[in-house]
Amino acid sequence: MERDAPRLPARLRREAVEPDRTAPGHEARASRRAAAGYARPVTRPTLTGTPDAVPALEIHDLLQGDDLELIDRWLAQADTVEIAEELSRLPRERRGVPFRLLAKDRALDVFERLDPSVQQELLEGLRDINVRQIFEEMDPDDRARLTEEMPAKVARQLLAGLSPNERRLTSTLLGYPEDSAGRLMSPEVASLRAGMRVADALDRLRRTGRSAETIYALPVTDDRRRLVGALGLRDLVLAAPDQPVEELMDTAVFSARVDTDQEEVARLMLEADLLALPIVDHEDRLVGIVTVDDAMEVLEEEETEDVARTGGAEPLGRPYLATSILQVARSRVIWLFVFLAAGAITVNVLAAFETTLAAEVTLALFVPLVIGTAGNTGAQSATTITRAIAVGEVRLADLAPVVVREGGTGLFLGLILGAIAFGPVALLVEPGIAAVVALTLLIACTMASLIGSALPLAAKRTGIDPAVMSVPLITALVDASGLIVYFLVARAVLGL
Amino acid sequence: MERDAPRLPARLRREAVEPDRTAPGHEARASRRAAAGYARPVTRPTLTGTPDAVPALEIHDLLQGDDLELIDRWLAQADTVEIAEELSRLPRERRGVPFRLLAKDRALDVFERLDPSVQQELLEGLRDINVRQIFEEMDPDDRARLTEEMPAKVARQLLAGLSPNERRLTSTLLGYPEDSAGRLMSPEVASLRAGMRVADALDRLRRTGRSAETIYALPVTDDRRRLVGALGLRDLVLAAPDQPVEELMDTAVFSARVDTDQEEVARLMLEADLLALPIVDHEDRLVGIVTVDDAMEVLEEEETEDVARTGGAEPLGRPYLATSILQVARSRVIWLFVFLAAGAITVNVLAAFETTLAAEVTLALFVPLVIGTAGNTGAQSATTITRAIAVGEVRLADLAPVVVREGGTGLFLGLILGAIAFGPVALLVEPGIAAVVALTLLIACTMASLIGSALPLAAKRTGIDPAVMSVPLITALVDASGLIVYFLVARAVLGL
Repeated sequence: MERDAPRLPARLRREAVEPDRTAPGHEARASRRAAAGYARPVTRPTLTGTPDAVPALEIHDLLQGDDLELIDRWLAQADTVEIAEELSRLPRERRGVPFRLLAKDRALDVFERLDPSVQQELLEGLRDINVRQIFEEMDPDDRARLTEEMPAKVARQLLAGLSPNERRLTSTLLGYPEDSAGRLMSPEVASLRAGMRVADALDRLRRTGRSAETIYALPVTDDRRRLVGALGLRDLVLAAPDQPVEELMDTAVFSARVDTDQEEVARLMLEADLLALPIVDHEDRLVGIVTVDDAMEVLEEEETEDVARTGGAEPLGRPYLATSILQVARSRVIWLFVFLAAGAITVNVLAAFETTLAAEVTLALFVPLVIGTAGNTGAQSATTITRAIAVGEVRLADLAPVVVREGGTGLFLGLILGAIAFGPVALLVEPGIAAVVALTLLIACTMASLIGSALPLAAKRTGIDPAVMSVPLITALVDASGLIVYFLVARAVLGL
Repeated sequence: MERDAPRLPARLRREAVEPDRTAPGHEARASRRAAAGYARPVTRPTLTGTPDAVPALEIHDLLQGDDLELIDRWLAQADTVEIAEELSRLPRERRGVPFRLLAKDRALDVFERLDPSVQQELLEGLRDINVRQIFEEMDPDDRARLTEEMPAKVARQLLAGLSPNERRLTSTLLGYPEDSAGRLMSPEVASLRAGMRVADALDRLRRTGRSAETIYALPVTDDRRRLVGALGLRDLVLAAPDQPVEELMDTAVFSARVDTDQEEVARLMLEADLLALPIVDHEDRLVGIVTVDDAMEVLEEEETEDVARTGGAEPLGRPYLATSILQVARSRVIWLFVFLAAGAITVNVLAAFETTLAAEVTLALFVPLVIGTAGNTGAQSATTITRAIAVGEVRLADLAPVVVREGGTGLFLGLILGAIAFGPVALLVEPGIAAVVALTLLIACTMASLIGSALPLAAKRTGIDPAVMSVPLITALVDASGLIVYFLVARAVLGL
């Protein structure tokens, strides 16, 4: 069999050594987690920055082909990160075959790396017993996120099929609102008691630490489970065995309540360089922990959302290639109606100034130039301020300094642009119209910067996501107001 | 004194306990690092999601005021993350006073949290001896990043003033290109030898681990310092003392070469849930390690860059409120010239079709509507694809599926929009023009989606940052082509 089997192309052949993970359920998760703190057992060759074009195509076709043995050999030597990536890129109906070829514990590892929307679709194509197995062995927080993606009936069924302990862990999480710290956290948190010594603490970790989400960040609680301090595994390891934990720990500790928004949690962890953040309930009792990998994913998700809205669309919520044309269209059509409505306003403005336009038809030549440039100025302001709000550099209280900077910048840019445009327009048509164009650029760019910077702050003030003040929305508003300015200036300057 | 001293407002009063950090230089850094793995000694109250308006204003004014004692008291009870945030929001010339009030070791902590551009400005206002002290005690990788921000002469001076060991560490990093793994990494990496047992390993860590960037992720090397495996501190702590390290470690390990781009490194760490990534030279010898906190900062920086370019501006490279009007304007003016040039093209297109426009002036009414809507459709495609490329969901090889999705979406949306627009336009003007508008929307939206999705991929193909295919740039291209379509359709349908 070996001699006849086709050889995998050289670049697809890689060494693979993975720990044996045959222990079922809880233990399996624990032993996988043992590897998680550092690096998944992987086979990825050192990154060297080689171009990505050819191998991707080959794997993509390979996985959709009939040669199950070749697929099996590729799977055996690829790392779980890669496998998850390639599965995400396959059409929905093609994922089941390669996935079912995976050994059970690798399958779970790959499964947990998939976006929840892809997880959901994959589950639909598997036999019940496999589905229940995967569901049982997932980390409670990943399971909670997957449940969010399922139809309620399926979710109830699967939750009912869990072992009591797993069901309890997940129900706790599902009891918290979506996108909250409570939903994001893992309830499997390793903690220490304030009265312990280092040696006791290490003992306790050896006994109970295998199933904890992390043991690098160790919250310390009193006998009522209230958070009183924290230390790192590093501190324990580097300390003398008889030192009291209370001496080593920090007593003033970052933490978050269960109902805190997940993005706030993630940004705090980014700013404060935290590996993990303890989560407490309303009585300051420790209930879970959020680890940095989940925080990074939240930030990436939030940023994808912001980028989508900046561009005037709703976020897809799933990997791009796993989204159908209809789903893509649906994420955009709502906003396009908004823009069409904004366009209708421009039609009305132009209709209102129809006589002016008829009197001087050359004015029409410069309409796209003027509103386009003003629109872009507004877009620059809007994206700058929206991002600054998102990363916490600008707060609501900063309205004044923002308006000063943006208004000043708009004025400055409008002056330069107007000055540059005057000459060519005067040559092309005549100085009067050139003056109208230049003056309009000056006024419209200043207005656009003010609108573009004030609206995201106004949105935040009213609790709307500032990114909703998207480039296209700001542009639409600026178009309409820019047109009005243009024709009013034209009337004034040209005496129309 | 206490009785007369003004009481800090209740919400500014918080308990603060911090470890004593009086040891100089290297040891100071080591002891600070001991706390870093988990949480900085902080006093931030638990996040509860309270609105941010009032306290920010008070602190902002407080720090710029004359009441040094009040400032001192606020500083004593604020955490270093907060202090760094508030300092970043102050005008440049106001930062020195509060900063100089900080105790030496806290000052260093706060300093390291500042954006390098702010660090640079702060240094300019300090006395030489303080500057040299801070520079000496910084982590080598932070020092390297700060050096990038300095004028070359100042950098040389400061580097010359370092102790030999620190100079060596930093020179190593500066030997690598900006934005590479080599520049991002810390050379102070705790590693183990393949032949060790768990007990030896823990011993070694106790002796040498204090100055390492992290001891949670432990690369394992052979006697030629080549990377042969890795394990986590967790594995060591949970294992039996006589177990060989070789048994515990993963032999197939993620790593990156020193010249790998920092964003690639950061994204790999995000995808593979890595706490740290070992960095190797061209002979696979371990030279440093990148930790997850630095990876998160790289991702945030890269995303701020992408967002800025999407909006048609250059990234500011510093906190928004720390940027002057002139600096903001400078980040935008280049792009505005590009857009002005694009606007000039629209003028030429309109001039070319001047006779058509003159023959049917009502066509002018719908110009902003048509090109605005098409422009927004293009913007949606561009932002979606640019983001998908950035997070690795779409690769160069995916041109075909992308074009199919985007072209299909554009066609679908164009159909809907054209159908919706027809009626109102027909009522407002006449069916002939309505047909022109509807048909143009259909064609232009399809074209816009294709342009908007293909250009980011084309940019990536030629090595340009796809985000440069910004919303305003795509919009400008779509405007010009949309106008051409509009008038050609008008001529065809209306027989002009």
